[in-house]
Amino acid sequence: MADDTMQLVIIRHGESEWNKLNLFTGWTDVDLTDTGRKEAAAGGRALKEAGFDFDMCFTSLLKRANHTLNIVLDEMDRVWLPVTKTWCLNERHYGALQGLNKADAAAEHGEEQVKIWRRSFDVQPPALEPGDERDPHVQDMFRDVPQDQLPYTECLKDTIARAWPYFEENIKPQMEAGKRVLIAAHGNSLRALVMQFEHLTPEEILEVNIPTGVPLAYTFDKDWNIVDKHYIGDAATIEAKINAVANQGKAK
Amino acid sequence: MADDTMQLVIIRHGESEWNKLNLFTGWTDVDLTDTGRKEAAAGGRALKEAGFDFDMCFTSLLKRANHTLNIVLDEMDRVWLPVTKTWCLNERHYGALQGLNKADAAAEHGEEQVKIWRRSFDVQPPALEPGDERDPHVQDMFRDVPQDQLPYTECLKDTIARAWPYFEENIKPQMEAGKRVLIAAHGNSLRALVMQFEHLTPEEILEVNIPTGVPLAYTFDKDWNIVDKHYIGDAATIEAKINAVANQGKAK
Repeated sequence: MADDTMQLVIIRHGESEWNKLNLFTGWTDVDLTDTGRKEAAAGGRALKEAGFDFDMCFTSLLKRANHTLNIVLDEMDRVWLPVTKTWCLNERHYGALQGLNKADAAAEHGEEQVKIWRRSFDVQPPALEPGDERDPHVQDMFRDVPQDQLPYTECLKDTIARAWPYFEENIKPQMEAGKRVLIAAHGNSLRALVMQFEHLTPEEILEVNIPTGVPLAYTFDKDWNIVDKHYIGDAATIEAKINAVANQGKAK
Repeated sequence: MADDTMQLVIIRHGESEWNKLNLFTGWTDVDLTDTGRKEAAAGGRALKEAGFDFDMCFTSLLKRANHTLNIVLDEMDRVWLPVTKTWCLNERHYGALQGLNKADAAAEHGEEQVKIWRRSFDVQPPALEPGDERDPHVQDMFRDVPQDQLPYTECLKDTIARAWPYFEENIKPQMEAGKRVLIAAHGNSLRALVMQFEHLTPEEILEVNIPTGVPLAYTFDKDWNIVDKHYIGDAATIEAKINAVANQGKAK
């Protein structure tokens, strides 16, 4: 890789306990399933085999992303790399839908309305009541976050409005200083980055579904033009994953 | 706990693969055994049951300490806490003895000499040759550390000379600002801290053997006097651990 390029790898966490149960997850702190852990390990091995290395890592506060990152670093023998955890890379907050399954949500709000919440760029699901046990303002995990920045619900646009500025302020300068960065996060917080990297419209980003557990490597030139972009791993696995996520639609 | 006190918990990693094989380990990056993982999980559960919480964590660059910390945080449901990894909290570097078993070391250097290296405060074991595969100057793990700070061997005094200044510069100010700190590290890097906390002489610190996987909680007043110090967990387990480590002597 030429010296005047910048390298970023993003990886979406694998299957979680609530993916499996088909529940709206959002900021609920559920763990990976065994399948999710295997996906992460395969991603880490693929990075190692492809000769990747990093200087620093970023992840969300949620354990499914942290565990994915830890497993990847174990596989790469890079447990010692610095890791920064931030709420800004958390999954989209799903408001009062969190914890409902897709059928219950449809029964309560109508199938069409639920589809709108899932597939629109800027329509928020119903907000949590302040003090609800799902409200981040009352959860230990967010006690060090300025309280006025925490959401009661989010549309994709809201997720982008916190994830992208975080990238610009905290990750971009590191990459411009030559640091190779690995980010382990979630479908929608990664969409925030991909939308900006690739200059996509709201309609276009909604069609982007990043497969789980497959590292996606970007190489940028110094002006942040994409020089190269490719998934890391064996071709058959990657294709199967991309097809699976395309069929799955945009459910989270 | 009164508002004008400061809280620190230290935990020594549990059994590693090389503890089991009775090899001099030092900076060799061996993993925990299943027993070591169980020790860490028990430590984490004990902290949770005793109602402990933290604001930030520190550990070494070595995977046996990182994995201990990760397991503790999993058990405490505190995966999202910030973690700082530093070479300054690494185990004592054992120089050219690293990778030898105790019998081979005795055959090569004499039993009395090996005993001196293991039990003295300021006599270094033989240094590594520069460029040896065990030399930290050529290992990826230390590529971001100023090269002139890295050792070829260390006595306990040398370990203290890097671990204690790190504590003073990076951890002490955080505790004085009210942060509750958890440190997961190694027998000798933790001795460096205990020696200073308790104003021990070189002879006294050599007699201190911190049991593995048992959290040790210090409460200080604002002048760094120890207000309280106790192990966290059930009394029988703690006593068995303390006896085990006392019988084991000072082997690393």
